[in-house]
Amino acid sequence: MKGLESIFRPKSVAVIGASTRKGTIGHEILHNIIINEFNGKVFPVNPKASVIHSIKCYSTVLDVPDAVDLALVIVPREAVPAVAEQCGQKGVKGLVVISAGFKEVGGKGIKLENEVVDICKKYGMRMIGPNCFGIVNTDPDYSLNCTFGKTKALQGKVGFISQSGALGEAIMNHAYELGLGFSMVASIGNKADISANEILEFWKDDPDTKVILLYLENFGNPRIFTKIAREISRHKPIVAVKSGRTRQGAIAASSHTGALAELDVGVDALFDQCGVLRVSSVEELFDVARAMANQPIPKGNRVAIVSNAGGPGLLATDALVNLGMDVAPYTGVTKTKLKKAISGLGNVNNPLDLVAGAGGSSFQKALSLIKNDKNFDSIIPIFVPPVTINQLEVAKSIHEGIKGTKKTVLACFMGAGEGSEGVNYLKQNGIPVYIFPEAIAKALSQIDIYRRWLDRPRYEFKAFKVNKKRVEEIVEEAISNGDEAIVGEPALEILTCYGIPAAMGKIANSEKAAVSAAEELGFPVAIKINTPQILHKTDMGAVVIDIRSAKEVKAAFTSLKKKVAGLKIKGKDRFSVSVQEMINGGVETVIGMTTDPSFGPLIMFGLGGIYVEVLKDVAFRINPLNEGNVTEMMEGLKTYPLLTGQRGAEAVDISKLKESLLRLSQLVTDFDIFSEIDINPFIASSIKGKSKAVDARFIIKKS
Amino acid sequence: MKGLESIFRPKSVAVIGASTRKGTIGHEILHNIIINEFNGKVFPVNPKASVIHSIKCYSTVLDVPDAVDLALVIVPREAVPAVAEQCGQKGVKGLVVISAGFKEVGGKGIKLENEVVDICKKYGMRMIGPNCFGIVNTDPDYSLNCTFGKTKALQGKVGFISQSGALGEAIMNHAYELGLGFSMVASIGNKADISANEILEFWKDDPDTKVILLYLENFGNPRIFTKIAREISRHKPIVAVKSGRTRQGAIAASSHTGALAELDVGVDALFDQCGVLRVSSVEELFDVARAMANQPIPKGNRVAIVSNAGGPGLLATDALVNLGMDVAPYTGVTKTKLKKAISGLGNVNNPLDLVAGAGGSSFQKALSLIKNDKNFDSIIPIFVPPVTINQLEVAKSIHEGIKGTKKTVLACFMGAGEGSEGVNYLKQNGIPVYIFPEAIAKALSQIDIYRRWLDRPRYEFKAFKVNKKRVEEIVEEAISNGDEAIVGEPALEILTCYGIPAAMGKIANSEKAAVSAAEELGFPVAIKINTPQILHKTDMGAVVIDIRSAKEVKAAFTSLKKKVAGLKIKGKDRFSVSVQEMINGGVETVIGMTTDPSFGPLIMFGLGGIYVEVLKDVAFRINPLNEGNVTEMMEGLKTYPLLTGQRGAEAVDISKLKESLLRLSQLVTDFDIFSEIDINPFIASSIKGKSKAVDARFIIKKS
Repeated sequence: MKGLESIFRPKSVAVIGASTRKGTIGHEILHNIIINEFNGKVFPVNPKASVIHSIKCYSTVLDVPDAVDLALVIVPREAVPAVAEQCGQKGVKGLVVISAGFKEVGGKGIKLENEVVDICKKYGMRMIGPNCFGIVNTDPDYSLNCTFGKTKALQGKVGFISQSGALGEAIMNHAYELGLGFSMVASIGNKADISANEILEFWKDDPDTKVILLYLENFGNPRIFTKIAREISRHKPIVAVKSGRTRQGAIAASSHTGALAELDVGVDALFDQCGVLRVSSVEELFDVARAMANQPIPKGNRVAIVSNAGGPGLLATDALVNLGMDVAPYTGVTKTKLKKAISGLGNVNNPLDLVAGAGGSSFQKALSLIKNDKNFDSIIPIFVPPVTINQLEVAKSIHEGIKGTKKTVLACFMGAGEGSEGVNYLKQNGIPVYIFPEAIAKALSQIDIYRRWLDRPRYEFKAFKVNKKRVEEIVEEAISNGDEAIVGEPALEILTCYGIPAAMGKIANSEKAAVSAAEELGFPVAIKINTPQILHKTDMGAVVIDIRSAKEVKAAFTSLKKKVAGLKIKGKDRFSVSVQEMINGGVETVIGMTTDPSFGPLIMFGLGGIYVEVLKDVAFRINPLNEGNVTEMMEGLKTYPLLTGQRGAEAVDISKLKESLLRLSQLVTDFDIFSEIDINPFIASSIKGKSKAVDARFIIKKS
Repeated sequence: MKGLESIFRPKSVAVIGASTRKGTIGHEILHNIIINEFNGKVFPVNPKASVIHSIKCYSTVLDVPDAVDLALVIVPREAVPAVAEQCGQKGVKGLVVISAGFKEVGGKGIKLENEVVDICKKYGMRMIGPNCFGIVNTDPDYSLNCTFGKTKALQGKVGFISQSGALGEAIMNHAYELGLGFSMVASIGNKADISANEILEFWKDDPDTKVILLYLENFGNPRIFTKIAREISRHKPIVAVKSGRTRQGAIAASSHTGALAELDVGVDALFDQCGVLRVSSVEELFDVARAMANQPIPKGNRVAIVSNAGGPGLLATDALVNLGMDVAPYTGVTKTKLKKAISGLGNVNNPLDLVAGAGGSSFQKALSLIKNDKNFDSIIPIFVPPVTINQLEVAKSIHEGIKGTKKTVLACFMGAGEGSEGVNYLKQNGIPVYIFPEAIAKALSQIDIYRRWLDRPRYEFKAFKVNKKRVEEIVEEAISNGDEAIVGEPALEILTCYGIPAAMGKIANSEKAAVSAAEELGFPVAIKINTPQILHKTDMGAVVIDIRSAKEVKAAFTSLKKKVAGLKIKGKDRFSVSVQEMINGGVETVIGMTTDPSFGPLIMFGLGGIYVEVLKDVAFRINPLNEGNVTEMMEGLKTYPLLTGQRGAEAVDISKLKESLLRLSQLVTDFDIFSEIDINPFIASSIKGKSKAVDARFIIKKS
């Protein structure tokens, strides 16, 4: 037994810093271990006491007569290294360090934390913390609750990892009120040794853990996280709250945990690629967890609602439909039978309104019909308890009505209050109950995202045949020139080498040369400034498009030359333009890459300048991409219909677009030298062979 | 005393249909009146009992020896007309009819409801209901609770109107749990006589009602609602949940109340124009109400956060910033003093992290500094109670710390549980407490919308000098021709008559005529099919743009003619085109009008075809518009930056755009004959005098 095994499944626990004084952490942890009837031996350690909580107390861990698997450390921060040293000598296998004042406060804290980590390494001990809230394992074989909260942890199927100690306590309280049980809980604090990744790995095959919840503020190693999370998500859902979502939030997160702030698009991309559900609040985290821990994943997004009141049914429908769920009418046999079964019912709609007087039998009849209708994937019974109806009876009837169904059932008892008889009955029978219908709608729609993720086809990563050697040459030349970026013709050549079609142009340094270039290419053409290199061409009007005659070529050449002459930049005397074939009738897209400090290269895709810049309608994925990623990126855009054709416009060559993204991904994988790539615009044409990159820019990493 | 006065402030109440049987509505209502110690006389009426709940019972209301102000009616629906008749004879002034089975079930119910309304009219009685949950007035002078719920209503400053009886009960329960008090509650049911509008009017100057909450499923008379709500919103906030938001929701709402479904954009426009805050759930309704009933409206959107835990502070920041609030760093004196005052604090950030061990004194110190900082408009203290800290003490310190401030203070006690000592202390002292920081963020951002509404300048409605007579002629001609729509040149002429600039074209029925028209206008030109009238021109490629030469004119004419020849439509033999000046370099916008069955004409504005059609980025307001409305419509668009210029583009002539919308509004007011108007595109140009409508279409109402 070693590592996490000895921490979560110890046979003996030492509480170092146990205290006789009630209300102190050192007292409450010991108290919690005892009242939860830990199935092993517990040894209080404190030089100042001989007995604590009726148990013999030892001066140091070295004095404990038995072997110690796990030591909880609640001593002042200065004493932690010495205590860790003693634990090492004693042969303790795991530490959970509750004490705070380490990396999170900076200064001396960092030094102390490093000392403790070194001691752990020396003895092969593993450590959770420091600056954490403790751990829980509700498995009756262990029944271990080493936290200092007031709240009991119920036994259940949810594993919970919290990076915030304070939130951990608040969350356990909320879970208890909701009746949600945990398999294990880990407050990981500063993650000096054991990270969330390692605990995820530990829970991957744990049969008692069916759903994993995360509260994260930053990622230790996002690449490892991606790998583990992707594997786990295939058979058990991971739901996460990741704070520091906004710039201000990220700054605060950084200062209070000493962690680097990640780009939030990176987090979203990462979660999406490994099937982790990102929710926006702790409340939602638990609303989703309750559903997933107790009910099956629905097969689709079609929801049946049965309610004894119109209003809540409407609210549920509004919320569900807004979140992309389908609340279609009852039809066919179900409709006929519902009408017959429930007397006095006017219209049979979804939501089905049983009217105020409806008691248990109406619910039971309706539900037992609906559960057999193949047109629905989940069922929401909504009950608003009038004083005249027995709540418990309704709860029993709902349970009876849905018996045997494989559909997902989430109930709403609006205004009944948590802990009412009916609510408790349903919860005990595995049907989660919510106070507000909107919470069900949110939870169901999140679960639907997970279902769609599970349904995604799995793709391999493709390798295209490319001319890597020529790109190496271009890059080397740029580096030896001391260039910060590769732009213009060489940039387009890089694309061509990787099979990304690019509109090659002809360089011309005189009006005459420009005219003959245009005539060779055929009108219309576009003319842009070639030298000096101007990065944001359209900002300065440095491109003239849709030129249809020699006369227009000359005018464009002259006007561009004049423009450059007016600028205060070097190299303006060796002026030349690039004459390019004009690609008409396509849709302007932008393909790019940006580097995230934690996640590495992110590939970007969006439509035309203003769509990206004004509407921020853009998708990111972490490199490398497979075909599935590329499809999701495109289809997730609000502007996607512009690619598939609308109002008589033809669809663009989407397969060529996808291929270009995959080829860019390969380029990014092959060349670690670029910090940013911008293919803007890439014209997606409806005509085969006409889709082309018109301009590109590769920013070289600063060495 | 009459009308609503006699219903909410009666001196004597008859409970017709009072029952001796516990658990029945007839029993529970009487019970609630008595246990809430109604400050007047109550008379049970039931022919089958001589005493109910220790009070003498009368056979009919006519037998009651005293005068009766208010009668509650809880008899079977068939008996309601007879009971109403007796009430009329008795001189009862107001009825609250709880009984159901009327308009909401259709059929005979509609007939019965009409009968009751007629009887009320005959005797000058006013009625709330039928099919309602009752009413409440907590004013100690009356202390009237005529509902059949289990929940006591606390005295407070919130007036609540619910169109759903079942929701009314659920909501009162939720309010009680949150400690939110009501001034009056009205469940209005089928609104056969008294509507929400009338109750709003009644509460307008009620000093006990400071915030008004609405749960609505439909509007009786939206025009009256707008007028009253706009007046009230100036001095007391109205917060509403309007269900039936989605198409499916609206269908369900319609079937269960028999009400017509409104276009949801109409509801949003209406609420916006009269300052009503629309929230999306009952939970949010109460989160906002608690803040507004207890705290001032903040002066701006700048929020200071003080927390004893990093995680919750981060969650609050993320949620606030996502909702458009500002969480700027502490600066200047505040920063210096905070650093000095709170020892052990590393960085002074906003959210201010007092670290886990922080007790009351830290909160008090920090808050007493922050409350004097003019850079913040509201303060959120967040406390996550560790076992080692006394919650009540922290609550007292928070209260002490913010004493005397005029900023808005909303507290979060995460994981403390409703009803804990600390939470109760703050609530009793007028500081609302929330369990989750996200709920505070949502409430604050909603209140901020209200603040901005209050801050909006007030505009008069302008009248432009227009040529109304000529438009009347054009319309009359179209009607006498039996046309369903006015399109093409006459449509553009209508705009011109109202001072909306339009690109007038020249009609040409031969190649030659087209060429000379183009030469007269000057190249480039656009050519489109004039006859036969084709409504969606771009769908069929019926417009050729950017024509630069006589050769291109001829090609366009021929291709359009060929296109029409291939269509199966009448009138294709008398083919002609319209040659228009081409307006280059502007931004395509769409201006229009659509008619909502309840709200009447809605004016619409959005950018170009795809922005409206694919991105749905479009604004609606209810006609008539003033300058303020027009400004809000434009500035609210995601695509607004395309009008103000970006990436080197020049800003378009926004004042001309605004004026055109106002002129259209006047046209719509003057002509009730159009069901739909579409000015598409209206090119907004950066050059003065170049903004022009290029195409327009007026659909004539079916008579």
